[in-house]
Amino acid sequence: MPSTSLPSNLKIGFLGAGQLARMSALQAFRFGIQVAVFSDRPENEPVQFMTPFSTSGSFESVDDMVAFAKDCDVITLENEFISSDILKQVQEKSGTPIYPSPESFALIENKLIEKQTFEAAGIPVTPYKLIDGESDLKTFGDEYGWPYLLKSSKGGYDGYGNETVRDLKSAKKAFEKLGGNDGRDIVAEAFVDFTKELAVQVARNESGTVVYPCCETVQKNHICVAVLSPAPVQEKYQKQAQELAVKATEAINGKGIFAFEFFLTKDGKLLLNESAPRPHNSGHYTIEGTVASQFENHVRAVLGLPLGSTELNKPAVAMINLLGTHKRPAKPDNIQEGLASENGHLHVYGKIESKPGRKMAHYTLLGENLEETYKNALHVTRNIEI
Amino acid sequence: MPSTSLPSNLKIGFLGAGQLARMSALQAFRFGIQVAVFSDRPENEPVQFMTPFSTSGSFESVDDMVAFAKDCDVITLENEFISSDILKQVQEKSGTPIYPSPESFALIENKLIEKQTFEAAGIPVTPYKLIDGESDLKTFGDEYGWPYLLKSSKGGYDGYGNETVRDLKSAKKAFEKLGGNDGRDIVAEAFVDFTKELAVQVARNESGTVVYPCCETVQKNHICVAVLSPAPVQEKYQKQAQELAVKATEAINGKGIFAFEFFLTKDGKLLLNESAPRPHNSGHYTIEGTVASQFENHVRAVLGLPLGSTELNKPAVAMINLLGTHKRPAKPDNIQEGLASENGHLHVYGKIESKPGRKMAHYTLLGENLEETYKNALHVTRNIEI
Repeated sequence: MPSTSLPSNLKIGFLGAGQLARMSALQAFRFGIQVAVFSDRPENEPVQFMTPFSTSGSFESVDDMVAFAKDCDVITLENEFISSDILKQVQEKSGTPIYPSPESFALIENKLIEKQTFEAAGIPVTPYKLIDGESDLKTFGDEYGWPYLLKSSKGGYDGYGNETVRDLKSAKKAFEKLGGNDGRDIVAEAFVDFTKELAVQVARNESGTVVYPCCETVQKNHICVAVLSPAPVQEKYQKQAQELAVKATEAINGKGIFAFEFFLTKDGKLLLNESAPRPHNSGHYTIEGTVASQFENHVRAVLGLPLGSTELNKPAVAMINLLGTHKRPAKPDNIQEGLASENGHLHVYGKIESKPGRKMAHYTLLGENLEETYKNALHVTRNIEI
Repeated sequence: MPSTSLPSNLKIGFLGAGQLARMSALQAFRFGIQVAVFSDRPENEPVQFMTPFSTSGSFESVDDMVAFAKDCDVITLENEFISSDILKQVQEKSGTPIYPSPESFALIENKLIEKQTFEAAGIPVTPYKLIDGESDLKTFGDEYGWPYLLKSSKGGYDGYGNETVRDLKSAKKAFEKLGGNDGRDIVAEAFVDFTKELAVQVARNESGTVVYPCCETVQKNHICVAVLSPAPVQEKYQKQAQELAVKATEAINGKGIFAFEFFLTKDGKLLLNESAPRPHNSGHYTIEGTVASQFENHVRAVLGLPLGSTELNKPAVAMINLLGTHKRPAKPDNIQEGLASENGHLHVYGKIESKPGRKMAHYTLLGENLEETYKNALHVTRNIEI
């Protein structure tokens, strides 16, 4: 049964204190809910400035997290750094439910199991193989072509834990770098010749499932630099990506907010590339871009509340990631054009230190026409330095 | 010069920890700014759950507030309970600027000076008179008609500090109750035979002035129960109310967010009734109803940033105040219809204790047609108990 009530002393606990937890916490506050945060870093994390209920500890210590969880009504996450096994113990020993559940996490925390799970559900994934020794490195390249990708089966994030390998020599080197010689599972993935990278967010709980529009993620050096919604691709691809994303959420029996990234190949196929059991950078545009944001539906989903509408508020939305430009105390400069722009929305994450490439802020612009909106968003943010 | 930068360790200090400071704080967080709060109550105030930087003290103690202000980059307020004289001392002794300025406060904290200030700026106000002894009570009634209103010149809020007097006997009683015999200035105000109560919010700083749409406030027993925007009155009245609101903000040289309440009389005159140098209940609808909310422009204004657009996001917005229905720990019940309604937005203030009539939460619905949107908003919130 979905919940119908919101007691004001309800406390939601976040494992992780970065910008994703921060933006979800802002939505929890809108519902009058209290927020507690467990960080694996001692201080100055974005959410730590937003609550008196802040704890530090290790993501590998069940005891640390049990003590935290006992003081919360529900626990949720903003990353994939904690193993499902540890989460399961935290849930059992604290008596506090964790959503998405440790069982859902177990199906996607390991890239190999993730791919097998989604394949079994009939969702096309990029061609892959578990590398069982050096000879596989050559065989995979011969079969699917060079270059290809090597990925650590655990802990990948924004290109970390991924290596593009161009020949056997670089493959061996990457295999070692990723921990393959230390017993870590390494998965080879064929390089997909895609025309677009697409993403879809899905929220799901006992009240039902809602799916966000299919958006395009624009990447530079494996880092998302912009998101456009709806994705400038034929409607049939948008719809298909949404259907696959819902199917994938169901395949892991997900309760929470989930994001799925797809490749649209040159021959018009959609392949699931990555999944995330949490709010995702590809969905930041939903804060103003849709009626209920991914963060609002994150909070609604884990609390068992009815989910909110994912309809776009305007025909076109462009989100620009504002990455650190300097190594210095964070100081978003030259923001005046962005702030003054009609229908533009600036979000700054409250990180104290900036460094080149670090995700520090984002800017969302709503408009009538996608191409023009994207152009304008790039224009009014072009001088921002952080 | 308007500011063009948003350093992440910037700290905004709120004097007052209720729902108005809370909703402004949420916008400060969106900009990556830290929030500190000074409350005259010891614990469990809405903002106290949203920051590690929480202090309690007296609104009458300069020292208490100086210690607080020294740790902040700018101070702002959510109420009119602190005298301008004390604010001025806090500003001077701490070196931290307060916006709106103590000078602006000084012009509106006393109802008599407020009316004189606005009258001098050419803004029509309700007929009034400072009561100098009992004989004035009779003279005012004879001149402007019974019943009329007696108001304490300081500290009025949601009908507190106001008395409707129907005859000389009740006038004497009210005069005494409001502190007239103890030397407090009591102002008589003619009862205005109005057709609508309207409100307009204005944000202003060194970057310019923006004015929100003219909305209607629906009152029951001097408490606002609903807000409709744009107000269902002729466009000429909307425009005139906006012009008067801007003029009033200029008359007090306001830097911050301001709200002005007007009576629209039966013979088509607009009279300024109340002003507030802070976010106001009449502007809660702007969170989703306009591009930049009154809370966002509150934060922008006091930081000297360019102000955001006040355009409506949809043609019609209805906001329903959700008042406490029981004396009990706060627990908004039966919220499912409101949450499930397309374009509906629930805000809960995080107060721990509810009591009948206390402002606990609000609900905003966006739509195409005002009458229908208001009807729907009332319908989906009709069963909510708090």
